Amino acid sequence: MSRGQLSIVGIGPGGRDLLTPQALAALREADVVLGYAGYFAWVQDLLAGKERIALPIGAEQERARLAIERTISGCRVALISSGDPGIYAMASVVIERLEAMEARSRPRLVVVPGVSALNAAAALLGAPLGHDFAVISLSDLLTPWHVIEKRLEAAAAADFVLALFNPRSQERDWQLDRARSILLRHRLNTTPVGIVRNAFRPDESILRTHLAEMDPLAVDMFSLVIVGSTTSRFVDDWLLTPRGYKQSGEGKSA
Amino acid sequence: MSRGQLSIVGIGPGGRDLLTPQALAALREADVVLGYAGYFAWVQDLLAGKERIALPIGAEQERARLAIERTISGCRVALISSGDPGIYAMASVVIERLEAMEARSRPRLVVVPGVSALNAAAALLGAPLGHDFAVISLSDLLTPWHVIEKRLEAAAAADFVLALFNPRSQERDWQLDRARSILLRHRLNTTPVGIVRNAFRPDESILRTHLAEMDPLAVDMFSLVIVGSTTSRFVDDWLLTPRGYKQSGEGKSA
Repeated sequence: MSRGQLSIVGIGPGGRDLLTPQALAALREADVVLGYAGYFAWVQDLLAGKERIALPIGAEQERARLAIERTISGCRVALISSGDPGIYAMASVVIERLEAMEARSRPRLVVVPGVSALNAAAALLGAPLGHDFAVISLSDLLTPWHVIEKRLEAAAAADFVLALFNPRSQERDWQLDRARSILLRHRLNTTPVGIVRNAFRPDESILRTHLAEMDPLAVDMFSLVIVGSTTSRFVDDWLLTPRGYKQSGEGKSA
Repeated sequence: MSRGQLSIVGIGPGGRDLLTPQALAALREADVVLGYAGYFAWVQDLLAGKERIALPIGAEQERARLAIERTISGCRVALISSGDPGIYAMASVVIERLEAMEARSRPRLVVVPGVSALNAAAALLGAPLGHDFAVISLSDLLTPWHVIEKRLEAAAAADFVLALFNPRSQERDWQLDRARSILLRHRLNTTPVGIVRNAFRPDESILRTHLAEMDPLAVDMFSLVIVGSTTSRFVDDWLLTPRGYKQSGEGKSA
């Protein structure tokens, strides 16, 4: 096997203080660093002497294709992903491309986990994910809307906390309002909602609201929307979902 | 306001290479470090000169109580949590206790996110969380089993990938098998399953299997079980859930 290795590296929200040493090492060891152009600024000083391949937003297939190609040619490639590469990110795009290749020609692959938007937004809000939750992307680019609706309905009916990725963009401007209508069949108007935009980035913002009052215009493609379960509530500015439904006693988990 | 501050710090799976600089700083700045005794070994060298309060497994309420008490007395307290403190961990326990206090006596609180067992296990398996997923704890200590069953049923019917926390322990030995029976009403016997035990720890193990063949005896309280959706599949050793149901083209997300 060649020395080529492809690392899909989760760099966290962007700042150096949530970049893990494992991700840092993967960047340092790489000959080629590849990713969405916007991420390069965050790790600029780590990239001296390396080949950098910056690609525009949306070019995931192209990023994956080039990363695999360079790895096969013998390079150590770091494909950078913001947050965690496993959650709506590059890991699945790459592995899907590997699947289409002959098994023996697939290069060595490592996935380096990161602090995802989910972890980051939850930390800023307090403890919204303190109990069972469902993570749903509202993007219907690759998933038919009726599948997304079915999941929203199921998750709402079974009282999951919901974390909504890709909640709204310029082209996808009606999905969040539809999602809210579905949730309101099962949740009170006053269900707490946290909208975190650009968590742990310089232009971070946190909006605390309630399901019926949520303004979709306050949400964009850099936002994560967390909708509470029936037990969630605000405590001061914190969004709390308690651990269970019974009286909280001494549990067993560490 | 006093100088007291309570930081609930996610230290990741345990090894230093997935501990973020933000978590490291929170530990360094603390006067008092408090947590489950088993975690102290992982951060031992960072704790010189600090007061350490190690508590047994299961003593979450006691940990939260002491952490708040020491903070109010003016200390900078770091309450350590493995993984991410927001996911089935200490953040909700602490905020629930703050809720029971008079608002003006609540101390300053910061939640430091971490690489959770979810992120870690997914990275080791490849890309099982590449699309929508539901996170469910099978512990019925604080949640009635019928609520858990309802969630399993809903998530299975709506074709979520499932991540099962607290899947099995010595005292809770039948829940995983029941969960599997529920899932098998909606999923094929051959649905891929990944069982990750102690991700990124020295005794890490990864088991790849299929839903009908999964051996509950291979699962314990240190395991996270990830059950694929109808689109999930193994590619070599990787567990892949593709990003959507439509033909994968150039998407819009970064």
